[in-house]
Amino acid sequence: MKIAVDAMGGDHAPQAIVEGVMLAKKEHPEIEFLLYGKEDEIKKYVTDATNVKIIHTDEKINGEDEPVKAIRRKKTASMVLAAQAVKNGEADAIFSAGNTGALLAAGLFIIGRIKNIERPGLMTTMPFVGSNEGGFDFIDMGANAENKPEHLLQYGVLGSYYARNVRKVAKPRVGLLNNGTEDGKGNELTKAAYKLLAEEPSIHFVGNVEARDLLSGVADVVVTDGFTGNAVLKSIEGTAMELMKLLKSSILDAGIKGKFGALMLKDALKSMKTELDYSTHGGAVLFGVKAPVIKTHGSTGPEAVNYTIQQIYTMLESHVIEELVEHFETQA
Amino acid sequence: MKIAVDAMGGDHAPQAIVEGVMLAKKEHPEIEFLLYGKEDEIKKYVTDATNVKIIHTDEKINGEDEPVKAIRRKKTASMVLAAQAVKNGEADAIFSAGNTGALLAAGLFIIGRIKNIERPGLMTTMPFVGSNEGGFDFIDMGANAENKPEHLLQYGVLGSYYARNVRKVAKPRVGLLNNGTEDGKGNELTKAAYKLLAEEPSIHFVGNVEARDLLSGVADVVVTDGFTGNAVLKSIEGTAMELMKLLKSSILDAGIKGKFGALMLKDALKSMKTELDYSTHGGAVLFGVKAPVIKTHGSTGPEAVNYTIQQIYTMLESHVIEELVEHFETQA
Repeated sequence: MKIAVDAMGGDHAPQAIVEGVMLAKKEHPEIEFLLYGKEDEIKKYVTDATNVKIIHTDEKINGEDEPVKAIRRKKTASMVLAAQAVKNGEADAIFSAGNTGALLAAGLFIIGRIKNIERPGLMTTMPFVGSNEGGFDFIDMGANAENKPEHLLQYGVLGSYYARNVRKVAKPRVGLLNNGTEDGKGNELTKAAYKLLAEEPSIHFVGNVEARDLLSGVADVVVTDGFTGNAVLKSIEGTAMELMKLLKSSILDAGIKGKFGALMLKDALKSMKTELDYSTHGGAVLFGVKAPVIKTHGSTGPEAVNYTIQQIYTMLESHVIEELVEHFETQA
Repeated sequence: MKIAVDAMGGDHAPQAIVEGVMLAKKEHPEIEFLLYGKEDEIKKYVTDATNVKIIHTDEKINGEDEPVKAIRRKKTASMVLAAQAVKNGEADAIFSAGNTGALLAAGLFIIGRIKNIERPGLMTTMPFVGSNEGGFDFIDMGANAENKPEHLLQYGVLGSYYARNVRKVAKPRVGLLNNGTEDGKGNELTKAAYKLLAEEPSIHFVGNVEARDLLSGVADVVVTDGFTGNAVLKSIEGTAMELMKLLKSSILDAGIKGKFGALMLKDALKSMKTELDYSTHGGAVLFGVKAPVIKTHGSTGPEAVNYTIQQIYTMLESHVIEELVEHFETQA
């Protein structure tokens, strides 16, 4: 098993990335890593060189680069070389904490779509609040600005394979994000997608779900178009962020009494934060391309890199991509 | 000033509704109230009958009634009679805590659209977190399942009038909810709406805004299509609800220490809850029809009814609807 790593992507690259790889090696020493980037900088953090190969390049893609242009013009960028390695069969998966748009473009244009999958989607596993175990696979969270009903059907199938193979959910419940739970609700897109999802024999479709019920566990896979998915994900993030800030300032406003209270509540708050931290659930997957293409937040630290590499490991071991290729092979 | 009240709408009707009206009368004894519903039930809660007229009817629209059918068939339902009173000029505004879809239908089909406004939107004022003063007017939060770019332009104008006249924001910043802040981002709808909003001289357009920044105060008016607006609003509600639950259970899990801490933190948590309680910001307005049509949550209590009546009072006093009629009168 070989994983191509864009060692130069992310706010704390290459340090956080390489340190994360070193953590992952302890759990799975058999994984071979190809690290793309500046050799002298990467080397500083390689504490165990077994099964680690550094491929030196000076070029890299920056956060502000225009994605498609960057992929085409920066032909020796660390991310581009890592994607090329996957395309050429030298690696089985690619990991990056760099420019999201560029990684999506690299996935689509270098690695390529699975046959008959029209629009790969960006998928993340969001935790159910109040349970460390469960979560839902949310797809498309923003790879596409527009989607057709057929894409949403494919997301239902993709998400079900992921939930079964990677997250070991025996019979994943697939929900369609909609503006009401009743049948017949929705816009043109969701009304048409509902019919397709309801008729699909390979998934367990549970109907429409509303955004307010996602975190409480109404479905294991939630499909939506990329525009709405992006808005919902950012709403959840923004609300959680503002509430944590508000809680902090409420404690400060309350003065000594509050500070004492806060001290007492520290453990409780810490466990709350841990539950909300979905970096422990791995990175976002560009799902529907021929190999695992995984992205984590630019601000990612070594621990989250490690989690994400475990996720890639499970994806490869479970042969989820091969099963998807087979599933879609025979589609019209 | 006369307000028609559907006294039978909502989970705690007519008690909560009539009690709320009595609270509002204390602040504005000059308002005349027309209360529609079962006279004997309503009478029980009327502690001050000055300027209060009860119009008896036995019929009412229920939560599970199909909205358009209910409006057409239940011709003497309290909500329908109240809307008729506004249409006939016997009242200046309508208030209901009943079936949302039915109230939208009553607003559109009985009271009617302002000339040249194609698709009235449902608007609510959401609080900025961390400040009791400010908030943003969010439109359309779900009156329509589909919208055209022209509708979003009209929402920008509608929201600006509301922010200026009712909330006294001198120069409201209008943002377009989009999947990125850069110009040129978005789907077909938002790309086209961006151009229209940027060219509109009567508003102060500040460009694209992202869902994660709404609560921190990135704009005073946020326009979006009804499908996305519905998803964003429910995401914010769901996340806030789950986090409050999580905080509670974290405190309980922490045992005595946590319970003691919770006691200490009680004031802080209470102020946090107050900030999040957007019923204090009034109800949702079906905006773009010929009179104020205002809806609050079905679970609304007397205090929230009172706040909402203050909101209607300010809308009427500020002549926001008359100004809108004039603004749109001359449009193509």
